[in-house]
Amino acid sequence: MSQRSKYELVMRLALERGFFMPSSEIYGDAPAGFWDYGPLGVSLKNRFIELWRRELVKRDDMLEIDGAQILSKSVFKASGHLESFVDPIAKCSKCRAIYRLDKLIEEKTGIHVPERASLEDMKKIIEEHGIRCGRCGGELTDFSHFNMMFRIGVGVAELDAYLRPETCQSIFIDFMRIYKTMRRKLPFAIAQVGKSFRNEISPRQGLLRMREFYQAEIEVFFNPKKANVFAKADPILDYKLRLQPIGEDSVKDISCRDALNSGLISSKLVAYYLALIQQFYEKAGIPREKIRLRELDEDERAFYAAEAWDLEVETSLGWIELVACNNRGEHDLGGHEKLSGQEMTVLDDGERVLPNVFELSMGIDRSLYCILENSLHLVNDRIVLKLPPYLAPIQAAVLPLLSREPFTDEAMSVYRSLKQDFDVVYDESGSIGRRYARYDEVGVPMDITIDHQTLEDKTVTIRFRDSTIQLRVRESDLRNFLRDHLKVG
Amino acid sequence: MSQRSKYELVMRLALERGFFMPSSEIYGDAPAGFWDYGPLGVSLKNRFIELWRRELVKRDDMLEIDGAQILSKSVFKASGHLESFVDPIAKCSKCRAIYRLDKLIEEKTGIHVPERASLEDMKKIIEEHGIRCGRCGGELTDFSHFNMMFRIGVGVAELDAYLRPETCQSIFIDFMRIYKTMRRKLPFAIAQVGKSFRNEISPRQGLLRMREFYQAEIEVFFNPKKANVFAKADPILDYKLRLQPIGEDSVKDISCRDALNSGLISSKLVAYYLALIQQFYEKAGIPREKIRLRELDEDERAFYAAEAWDLEVETSLGWIELVACNNRGEHDLGGHEKLSGQEMTVLDDGERVLPNVFELSMGIDRSLYCILENSLHLVNDRIVLKLPPYLAPIQAAVLPLLSREPFTDEAMSVYRSLKQDFDVVYDESGSIGRRYARYDEVGVPMDITIDHQTLEDKTVTIRFRDSTIQLRVRESDLRNFLRDHLKVG
Repeated sequence: MSQRSKYELVMRLALERGFFMPSSEIYGDAPAGFWDYGPLGVSLKNRFIELWRRELVKRDDMLEIDGAQILSKSVFKASGHLESFVDPIAKCSKCRAIYRLDKLIEEKTGIHVPERASLEDMKKIIEEHGIRCGRCGGELTDFSHFNMMFRIGVGVAELDAYLRPETCQSIFIDFMRIYKTMRRKLPFAIAQVGKSFRNEISPRQGLLRMREFYQAEIEVFFNPKKANVFAKADPILDYKLRLQPIGEDSVKDISCRDALNSGLISSKLVAYYLALIQQFYEKAGIPREKIRLRELDEDERAFYAAEAWDLEVETSLGWIELVACNNRGEHDLGGHEKLSGQEMTVLDDGERVLPNVFELSMGIDRSLYCILENSLHLVNDRIVLKLPPYLAPIQAAVLPLLSREPFTDEAMSVYRSLKQDFDVVYDESGSIGRRYARYDEVGVPMDITIDHQTLEDKTVTIRFRDSTIQLRVRESDLRNFLRDHLKVG
Repeated sequence: MSQRSKYELVMRLALERGFFMPSSEIYGDAPAGFWDYGPLGVSLKNRFIELWRRELVKRDDMLEIDGAQILSKSVFKASGHLESFVDPIAKCSKCRAIYRLDKLIEEKTGIHVPERASLEDMKKIIEEHGIRCGRCGGELTDFSHFNMMFRIGVGVAELDAYLRPETCQSIFIDFMRIYKTMRRKLPFAIAQVGKSFRNEISPRQGLLRMREFYQAEIEVFFNPKKANVFAKADPILDYKLRLQPIGEDSVKDISCRDALNSGLISSKLVAYYLALIQQFYEKAGIPREKIRLRELDEDERAFYAAEAWDLEVETSLGWIELVACNNRGEHDLGGHEKLSGQEMTVLDDGERVLPNVFELSMGIDRSLYCILENSLHLVNDRIVLKLPPYLAPIQAAVLPLLSREPFTDEAMSVYRSLKQDFDVVYDESGSIGRRYARYDEVGVPMDITIDHQTLEDKTVTIRFRDSTIQLRVRESDLRNFLRDHLKVG
């Protein structure tokens, strides 16, 4: 199949089988960039988050919080978002169409506009190249910066507050209380999963650029003098990263040790967390050759980042950024300390330190898109969704071979015995082959068929999605069998 | 201890041990009514949601979705929120203090103001009773209705959208797609857990009245002619509900069957879901004598409800509403069908039906408060938090008897073997008695102590929080032992 059609196959599957759908879709005034997860999407997302918890949060003894999404104006004054979280825009003087200037220039001229370019610079390029409105040919006007945060008016007086554009601000403002109540020492990490909001000028491509989206963010607090005194990294030194440093145009398969020795990675701490996040995506079912950690040069980095690696995954739409791995330095705790007047330094081996921050900022929705696309295979022209069993939204389908008693009764009783502890479905409609296909398509790793032999000896047929191998299991062993086959490898 | 102090004990525990804390607390402009969950709160909340999924969603074969929080203006035109989700307010003409009129009148005169009272009615009462500003004695003015939804401006043009004031609107607007893609028949339910937002005029009392809060909502779609043809209810007919019908001032312990026969409950469908929700709170550790289902009279009901029962729990602050069980009738699908022009009827045994809705709308944050308060016991003047083991945020503490090798090494290795599959902590600081107390206080159901005998025979001491009974378990059996003791009863 063509690459373009793979995206369309995922989107069609998502809509037709209940993974996700546009929000407010029954109304003409539905704003773009908002999506709802259907039943299968909710389950896939929950399992993905559980895997993140297991392989990152728990593995690394992180603390997890869940903060409010609406935060005070001061938070974003201190973080720099009020001033710097802006897109350059211009309007058509005739049809009032709105353009994001940096994207428009890149599209029309191929010129890459750096993050820090001024409106004047961009206006000059627009004039030099005679760029006009793409719709009506009108002249561009009203050059300005558009802040991408959604403002909220709180209380009857409508005091300024904002929907957070990144979950991590909750982590920074709660840092000192968490540090004290949870009795930690540097280095340690605080994690959070939750919604963030950005008033994108042109949201697009399903889950890839949304205005309301899920992030899973990890903020590692550390003493900058000790980023290399980091024993936790020792067990992963031989693990091979897929690195693409600044200036290189291909990916190197290189061990953490070699990357550190050759100076490609600045510290053991950074190497360790890059290894953890790459391992996580391998567990999430992305083949390693489709993963890269691409280093960003100064022009590409977020305004707060001193060093940045993007974990990207290759899809039919090109390489997609899933995790921003940023060294935010003192930016966050320093900024909040300054504005709030609250002490943010901690004692580390007798020395007062303002912790630096290294973050792994993950987009969940786009990760799910990449996992779906990578799992989608066509076998004899029908879709088989080869998700890792521990990510499958439905873990097993319970199917009576024939849609009549006693098969249906027995199947219903098996279903009832499993349903509170597993995500299982019961289905008696259509031929057994058709039902296998129905559940292959949404990634169910095993089907449990109640057949003639079941009625005789209380064993069921297990059919595996990927191999289509069939074997018999005793009903009384089913729970353990399922548990074993759904374990994280 | 006094009742008042129980609330304070919970709040202090929450702040000092990382359950929850005010959001943006380091800033003076932090808006009231926003809270962050700390590490123990996140874990407690996740387990509570898992229990809800197990005992309601999965038990009843419901479908779960997760919709966007920002919805189009049309959604709230159709739902009636734009017009009716308002509080009556007035301002002081001198100091500009703002009052919620119905509450102010109730406080000053004891008169209960019905939901549907007009501003004129309230103004009259204010004048008759000479009610003035409580702060400065000024005259009240600017009588108006204040809409409690937060408005959002989407895109550069700032088109009107709103943060949802209840999660269920996502369910109603997605109803038809879910119904079709998931191939269901009436009656069936769609569930959702997520954030809702209300611009409360005076948020108060921690998690009890927040501006941003978690709801877990269940919307049951049914054919109104068949609310009594409902075989699923048969197994619960003998289950005793704690009912307080309209006009009664005490609670009756009455079986579903008797409540149906005597007409206290309108249908088997309603009886079944009331039973499910009451059973859920019993499993969540609330003693049944502290639970009641109070029927609301017309004056108290939400603007869309034709029949309403509140599940309330008794606390030191009085009875607190945790779940609104509303018969919303045709209000929702009818309203959206009318405004969107999209068909919302479905075929039920050959008949076209506009499904009616019965809902269980649960407040998660306040439920957690009630569970914490109910679990909090003082034993010899120290707090023991007697949470059901399956709700405990930390499931076991791994403690070396002495804080030196080889105890610490052995304990660390036990901790490492458990930490990815369980929520466990490792702690070597302080006497063993002090550590037991530290974890009793946050509800850890079991401590695992590595002592002298462990070094000889690889068994550990398990100490139970509530009984303080101790027993020995082989290290190799620990996983199964924990799993068994953390099962939902």
